[in-house]
Amino acid sequence: MPDDSFHVFDTTLRDGAQREGINLTVADKLAIARLLDDVGVGFIEGGWPGSNPKDTEFFRRAADELPLTHARLTAFGATRRSDVAPADDPQVTALRDSGAPVVTLVAKSDSRHVERALRTTPEENLAMIADTIRYLREHGQRVFLDCEHFFDGYHHDPDHARSVVRTAAGAGADAVVLCDTNGGMLPADITRVVTEVGNDTGARLGIHAQDDSGCAVANTLAAVDAGATHVQCTANGYGERVGNANLFSVVGALELKYDRRVVPEGCLAEMTRVSQAVAELVNIPPATHQPYVGVSAFAHKAGLHASAIKVDPDLYQHTDPSRVGNDMRMLVSDMAGRASIELKASELGFDLSCDRALLGRVAERVKSLEQSGYSFEAADASLELLLREELGSPVRYFRAESWRVLSERRSAPATDARAADTAAPGQESAGEPLSEATVKLYVKDERVIATEEGNGPVNALDRALRSAMEGVYTALGALELTDYKVRILEGTSGTDAVTRILVTFSDGNSDWTTVGVGENVIDASWVALEQAITYGLLRQGYPHL
Amino acid sequence: MPDDSFHVFDTTLRDGAQREGINLTVADKLAIARLLDDVGVGFIEGGWPGSNPKDTEFFRRAADELPLTHARLTAFGATRRSDVAPADDPQVTALRDSGAPVVTLVAKSDSRHVERALRTTPEENLAMIADTIRYLREHGQRVFLDCEHFFDGYHHDPDHARSVVRTAAGAGADAVVLCDTNGGMLPADITRVVTEVGNDTGARLGIHAQDDSGCAVANTLAAVDAGATHVQCTANGYGERVGNANLFSVVGALELKYDRRVVPEGCLAEMTRVSQAVAELVNIPPATHQPYVGVSAFAHKAGLHASAIKVDPDLYQHTDPSRVGNDMRMLVSDMAGRASIELKASELGFDLSCDRALLGRVAERVKSLEQSGYSFEAADASLELLLREELGSPVRYFRAESWRVLSERRSAPATDARAADTAAPGQESAGEPLSEATVKLYVKDERVIATEEGNGPVNALDRALRSAMEGVYTALGALELTDYKVRILEGTSGTDAVTRILVTFSDGNSDWTTVGVGENVIDASWVALEQAITYGLLRQGYPHL
Repeated sequence: MPDDSFHVFDTTLRDGAQREGINLTVADKLAIARLLDDVGVGFIEGGWPGSNPKDTEFFRRAADELPLTHARLTAFGATRRSDVAPADDPQVTALRDSGAPVVTLVAKSDSRHVERALRTTPEENLAMIADTIRYLREHGQRVFLDCEHFFDGYHHDPDHARSVVRTAAGAGADAVVLCDTNGGMLPADITRVVTEVGNDTGARLGIHAQDDSGCAVANTLAAVDAGATHVQCTANGYGERVGNANLFSVVGALELKYDRRVVPEGCLAEMTRVSQAVAELVNIPPATHQPYVGVSAFAHKAGLHASAIKVDPDLYQHTDPSRVGNDMRMLVSDMAGRASIELKASELGFDLSCDRALLGRVAERVKSLEQSGYSFEAADASLELLLREELGSPVRYFRAESWRVLSERRSAPATDARAADTAAPGQESAGEPLSEATVKLYVKDERVIATEEGNGPVNALDRALRSAMEGVYTALGALELTDYKVRILEGTSGTDAVTRILVTFSDGNSDWTTVGVGENVIDASWVALEQAITYGLLRQGYPHL
Repeated sequence: MPDDSFHVFDTTLRDGAQREGINLTVADKLAIARLLDDVGVGFIEGGWPGSNPKDTEFFRRAADELPLTHARLTAFGATRRSDVAPADDPQVTALRDSGAPVVTLVAKSDSRHVERALRTTPEENLAMIADTIRYLREHGQRVFLDCEHFFDGYHHDPDHARSVVRTAAGAGADAVVLCDTNGGMLPADITRVVTEVGNDTGARLGIHAQDDSGCAVANTLAAVDAGATHVQCTANGYGERVGNANLFSVVGALELKYDRRVVPEGCLAEMTRVSQAVAELVNIPPATHQPYVGVSAFAHKAGLHASAIKVDPDLYQHTDPSRVGNDMRMLVSDMAGRASIELKASELGFDLSCDRALLGRVAERVKSLEQSGYSFEAADASLELLLREELGSPVRYFRAESWRVLSERRSAPATDARAADTAAPGQESAGEPLSEATVKLYVKDERVIATEEGNGPVNALDRALRSAMEGVYTALGALELTDYKVRILEGTSGTDAVTRILVTFSDGNSDWTTVGVGENVIDASWVALEQAITYGLLRQGYPHL
C-alpha cells in the first residue's frame, strides 16, 4: 500500500467528463468511482458540488453508496469570489458541506487571466487563495490547489505564478498542482519549470497535463522527474478537447518503468478490465490501440517478428502484458508466415508444430483467401473453422440449398410519417423500406424452408436462418448478432467493388467474429452469417456432422 | 522548402499498415501517397518490394502513377542474408530494381537478436550491413539504416550497438535511425542515449518511435532535442500494437513550437484534411480527439470560462487552429453551425447572409439530419440539393413509385468453379450470387418500369434507375458511379445499426458525393443514388421540374 508520499489523483468524473460525447448519470459516476477504486488510485475527484444538481446528488449518495477501499473522495471547486468571505460564498460552503474529506480548489495563476477573466488584482487573487484554503482546512478538509494555466502564466509573469504557489503552500495546501490547461507544453519545458518552481518555493508540487500536444503522459512523467509527487490523470485519457494524461499509461510507466509502488499490491493487473469497463459505462468504444490496456497493445502482426516471438517473447515486448491484466495476441495477416499461423492455432487449441505439410496447406489457403479480400486478423472464428476443415474435421450443422432476399420500398401517401425536416433531399414522400428473406436448408437431412422479414436484408437473412433451425438447435435463441462491419476493398470501382463483411455474435458470455467477402454485399454477409451461426452451435456443444 | 538538413520521413504505407484492421490495396496506397505528398513529407516509405506481390506492384505502378511534388519514394528491405553476397540475394536485388531513389534497410542492433533471431555472429551482422549499404549506394540509391531494437540493444551491449551505427555511417548510410521497436522507452532516456551515440559516433541520427508507452511523440522530440535530424512517423499514428509516432503531432510540434521549417510552405494547413482523408482510405473512423487535427482538438465545451474564450481565444488555445487547417468549435452554440452553413452556401453560389430566417431553417434541418446519422462534410451534392429545396427551388427529374431488389444464391453442382483453396469455410459447393432490381418511376409524367441485373443489389439498382431514364435523359450514359462507402454508425448494435452510405459519381470532368442513411443498407443506398443521379442531371444542364 503506497503511503501519502505519492498521489495518484484521478479526475475522470470531473475533468474527464468534459470530453465531447460523455454525459454521465449519477449512477454512472458511482459505478466508475468503484472501478477507479479497484485500480488503486489514491484520490477520486467526483465533481463540483453546488455547481449543478447532479454533482450535488453524487456527493450526497457517495456517503452511503461508495465504500472506497483505497481512494479518498475529492470535491472540486473554486476559491472564494473577490471581496466575499469564504463563509459567505455559497460555492465554498457547498465544498465544506460536501462530505468529501479532500477538496481541490482551482485558482488563476496567470496574471492575464486574473485581470481579464477574474477582473481583479493579483493581490486579491492571492488573498482569495489563502482565505479559502485556510477556511476549508479549519473545517477539517485536506486541500490541493490546481493552478490553472500555470505554465503560460509562469512564462508571462513568473513572479505572480510563484506567489500563487507560495501562498497556497503557506496557507496549508497539501499539494500545489501546476496545470497545463491548454495542453501545449512539451516535456523538456515541463521539467525545467517544475524544477525551478520546486527550488524557488519548496512547495509539494503536482502536475495536471492536457494532451493537446500529444505529450500529456510524457509531460506528467517529466514533472515527476523534476520532483512532482502528485499526478492528475483520467481513465483512458478522457478529457476536454484532446483529453488528459491517461491514468493507465502514467501508472503503467511509474510502476513498471520507474519501479515505484504508486498503487496498492494487486491493483495494477486490474487496469485492462477497468479501462474497458469504464469505456462501456461512458459508452465510447474502448480505444483498442491504447498503451498497456488496449486489446491491440500486445498484438503482433508482422511476419518479421512472429517467428522470433515464438522463441523469446521478452525480446519483443516492452513489458509483460499479464502485469497489467492484458494478453499477447498473434494476428494472422498476409504479412505473416507459417510461424504466426502455428502460434494462432496453438492459441485456438491445435498443435500444428509437428505437421509441416498441414501448416503449409493452411498458410497457402489463408494467403489465397487474403488475396481475394479476406482478412482473418479480427475473424478468429472463421480461422478456427478453416483450421478444422484442413484438419479433416469440418464443422457442419446444415447445408444451404438456396437463399434469397427481397428489399423494396413503395411511395406512400402525402400523410407519411417522414417529417420534412428529417427527410433527405427528394425523399419527402417515401414509404418504409421492407426486407424479406427466404432460406432453403437441409438440417439433419430434413429440407426446411423459412421466410422472415427484417429491418434490412442481412437482418432478414439472419432471422430466416435461425427460424429454419431453431426447432432442432434450440440454443440458437441465445446467440445474438452484436456487430456488423462493412469494408469496401477497391475504393475506386463503385458498386463493382469487393466487399468484406465482419459479423460478430455473442452468446452472453463471449463473442466471436467471422468474415465473408464478395462483390455482392448480401452474399458476403451470408458467408459470414453462416460461419458465425455454425461456430455458435459448435460453442454450444452440439455434435456436428 | 526545407533542405536535406532535416528529414520528415513517413512510413504509413509500410509500418503504419501493420496496424490491426488496416489492409491496403495498391490503389489505396497510391492515393495515400498522394495525400502524404500534399502534407509535405520528405520521404514516403512505400513498402517492401519483393516481400509480397502487392508491394511489388505498388512500386511498379508508382513509377507512372505517382508524380510526387515534395516527397521521395522509399523502399524498405533487409540487409543481405548471412553468407550471401548482396548481388545474389533476391531480396536485395528487388530493392535495387524497385525504381525507388531511396532505400531504408532494417538491421539488427541488439546482439541478442543477432544471435537468437538472425543466428549469426556480431561480426557477420556488421558485414551484412556494410555490404548491403555499399551495394545499393553503388547502384545510385540513397540508403538509411533502421537499427531495430536499438535502445534495448544499447542497454544490453552498447559496443555492438555503437558498432552498427559506425559501420552504417562508414558504409555510406545517409542517416542511421535508432528504433524503439517495442515502444517501451521514455523521453529522458531517449535524450540521454541519442546524445551519447551522437557524441560517440558522429553519425547523422534519426529516430523511429513506437507508442507502447504513450510517449512516441515526446520520444521523437526528445531525440530531436539530442540532435537527431530525421524523424520517422505515420499518419494518425497508425502502426503495430499501439502505433507509431503521429506525423501530425510531430510536425505540429516542430513547426509551431520549435519554430522549425520542416515541411514546405503551405503544407502545414493541409494536415487536418489529409488526416481525415487517410482515415477514410484505411476505413478507420478518424480519431476525433487527436492532437492538432482531430475535430475535437479545438472544441470547447461550456465550462469554467466559456464566455472568455470568445473574447480572447489565444489565452485558451495552445496554438491557432487555422495554422493546421483546423477550426475552433464552441460546442454549445448554434452560431458556429449557422456561420458554416452560410459559408458553405456561398461556396455553392448562394448568398444567405441577409436571410437569417432561411439560414436558421437550413441549420435546423441539417442539425436534425445529422442527429439521425447524416454527415454533409463529404456530401456537397446532398447539401446543395437540400439548400435548393429550402430556397423554394427543389431539383426533381423523376419521382419514384417503388423499387425492389432481389438477391439470391442457389447451391451449385460439385463441379462448381469455386476452387477449394479460395473458398471460405463451409462454402465449397456454392453457386454464384445474383441480384436483380426493378424500379417504377414517373419520368416527365410517363410511368416507366425497368428491371436490370447487377453483381450486387446496389449495382442492380443503379442500372435499373439509369435504364428507366436514359431514353429521356441521354446524358445519363456519361455518368459513372465511382465510389461507394458504407459506414456502420456507433451507438447501436448488429444489423439493427444505422448505416451511412456515401456514393460518388463522376461525369469524366468532375465528381460529386451524396449521402443516404437508414437502418436498411439498400434503402440508404437508394437515397444516396437517387440524389447522385439527380445532381448529375442538374450538372448536365437539364431543366428540372
